Amino acid sequence: MISAPAFSTFFPPRRTLMGPGPSDISPQVLAAQSKPTIGHLDPLFIKMMDELKSLLQYAFQTTNPMTLAVSAPGSAGMETCFVNLVEPGDTVIVCRNGVFGERMRQNVERIGATAVVVDDPWGQPVSAAKVEQALQQNPQAKFVALVHAETSTGVCSDVQTIAAIARQYDCLSIVDAVTSLGGIELRVDDWGIDAIYSGSQKCLSCVPGLSPVSFSPRAVQKIQDRSHPVQSWFLDQSLVMGYWSGDGKRSYHHTAPVNGLYALHESLRLLAEEGLENAWARHRQQHRDLATGLTKLGIEFIVDEQYRLPQLNAVTIPEGVDDAKVRSRLLNEFNLEIGAGLGDLAGKAWRIGLMGYAARKENVALCLQALNQVLR
Amino acid sequence: MISAPAFSTFFPPRRTLMGPGPSDISPQVLAAQSKPTIGHLDPLFIKMMDELKSLLQYAFQTTNPMTLAVSAPGSAGMETCFVNLVEPGDTVIVCRNGVFGERMRQNVERIGATAVVVDDPWGQPVSAAKVEQALQQNPQAKFVALVHAETSTGVCSDVQTIAAIARQYDCLSIVDAVTSLGGIELRVDDWGIDAIYSGSQKCLSCVPGLSPVSFSPRAVQKIQDRSHPVQSWFLDQSLVMGYWSGDGKRSYHHTAPVNGLYALHESLRLLAEEGLENAWARHRQQHRDLATGLTKLGIEFIVDEQYRLPQLNAVTIPEGVDDAKVRSRLLNEFNLEIGAGLGDLAGKAWRIGLMGYAARKENVALCLQALNQVLR
Repeated sequence: MISAPAFSTFFPPRRTLMGPGPSDISPQVLAAQSKPTIGHLDPLFIKMMDELKSLLQYAFQTTNPMTLAVSAPGSAGMETCFVNLVEPGDTVIVCRNGVFGERMRQNVERIGATAVVVDDPWGQPVSAAKVEQALQQNPQAKFVALVHAETSTGVCSDVQTIAAIARQYDCLSIVDAVTSLGGIELRVDDWGIDAIYSGSQKCLSCVPGLSPVSFSPRAVQKIQDRSHPVQSWFLDQSLVMGYWSGDGKRSYHHTAPVNGLYALHESLRLLAEEGLENAWARHRQQHRDLATGLTKLGIEFIVDEQYRLPQLNAVTIPEGVDDAKVRSRLLNEFNLEIGAGLGDLAGKAWRIGLMGYAARKENVALCLQALNQVLR
Repeated sequence: MISAPAFSTFFPPRRTLMGPGPSDISPQVLAAQSKPTIGHLDPLFIKMMDELKSLLQYAFQTTNPMTLAVSAPGSAGMETCFVNLVEPGDTVIVCRNGVFGERMRQNVERIGATAVVVDDPWGQPVSAAKVEQALQQNPQAKFVALVHAETSTGVCSDVQTIAAIARQYDCLSIVDAVTSLGGIELRVDDWGIDAIYSGSQKCLSCVPGLSPVSFSPRAVQKIQDRSHPVQSWFLDQSLVMGYWSGDGKRSYHHTAPVNGLYALHESLRLLAEEGLENAWARHRQQHRDLATGLTKLGIEFIVDEQYRLPQLNAVTIPEGVDDAKVRSRLLNEFNLEIGAGLGDLAGKAWRIGLMGYAARKENVALCLQALNQVLR
């Protein structure tokens, strides 16, 4: 026998999470998650799932019946959208202005489809003009994929305009809303978005590990008309819908992450209680206060004011400052996590999140005061 | 605006979970899960992940460095093993004696590989002789895939013998240990298993949503020698290992399900504290007591005694008994969940789980007494 290791129960410290996610989680959400586990086919659980679907539809501002939470993190939500819609040989216009556009490209290529990449510089939004040009040059394209809130740079792209252009060219739009859902304006039906995915651990302030997704009726039709089977069994939505269908007869696909779904239900319930527009306004307000304070500390934003995400503040590390040392002091002395730069911005930027429950006066005050002391 | 639905916080009842999973969860595991979320790159979290890897290695009885938990349920663990190892055009011997062997076949075919199916009747173990015959007839085969504990029928197959045969024919073995890990004897290294996956919600008695996996050095070599990229970005282990590598430098792949991993750490810690052999013996003992009681009630097992899984008792529904009504009364009057039949056994069988924390005297007593009253 390989002998048993002897470890103690893990007791994490209480951190203030102001990185790119996971964000601070409301005590009510943690409490909901720790309720006793019941069966994933229990009638009471199924009733909760029906409520969860309504709450997701509200958060996405959609009436799409095919709205659910993938039982895995946001990157699985991304893959769910791509593998269900895109078939081998298809052409997809992929907008890339940060890490997650590049990840979309990799998803497309692993399907055996062709990605036509529309590049914009890191820290700038996707250019609608370039997307339209790419569509003109690639009449065979069937999809336009873009990131609403690019977590690696803190930039917001104009999904409403680009989804409308996609539709003009008879393309479906696939939108990454991992960092946007619940934090900034997003209207799936009004904007004509065809497939969208998000993550539980950003502006929803739920525990990490779940990915809300929604598909328009046009997208559902596309899935039904596929000529190749979906390459993933686990993510095949035609199978998953047997469980989420809400027709009262849930068929077993996989064991749902019961406790995580309790938490998601509670976090969405709190969002509905506050109201989406109030949540968006709260994120804007806290962002303004943070930005004012950062400017006073001489810290500059990477993104032009008009394109900045309130919930993800990417700032340039001031010259002469030791990136790792500052983040480590914030963590060890103030229990405050802010995010490092990712990809091209590694070592050059910090990413300060104000997501969901973290978009609070207390957090802004702590962050400014801690930075002030550590940078002094 | 689509208006906000108004729902209350969900308060699940306290059930006793004796179905095919999720199983009863120890209060300590639920408590561990509800600890404050910290960042997935936090040094303290990474230390916890290192411990978690040791605990998984102990549970699997392996020294495989590539041992980790997939951030999704067991069916994603299954897919992880298949998509990382099997390439388009490969031949896989798939042993099918229940629902999960069939799911393996579907995984193989979605890769564009060929599944040679070795069928055994539901309720019987995989026949080692038939596997050997299939290997003789298919010298091009590269893998043998089988389910250790078939959750749909309650039968245990002889993985040790079949993995050894696979190796004689220079094939890698892929083993489904979703329902076996922690409940019955399983020794990955001694038995020469090359790839194995499990689920958190069975005999580990952790919350559902995570899938422990392990790959032998031979399997890792196979992954490194691939000529096609892995079709799934999310499940590509060459990327995931950058996060789980344990060399102190964890690189971001996706946001880990932080709280779920707290729970898995605690459930594995409890298993290590009890000791694997003691846990196996406890499952056997509770099974014997349950079987004795069921026999007294005139309820018969589907599987021959020598092949029965202690943790999953598939029994024939007595003649004239209304399946749904009995399960519904158990649930509503006794808060007791037992499992329905699945696939070929739907409407014909019940599946009574004694998994992990549920393999307790109290549960056996409740189940026998409740069945006695409801069937009277």
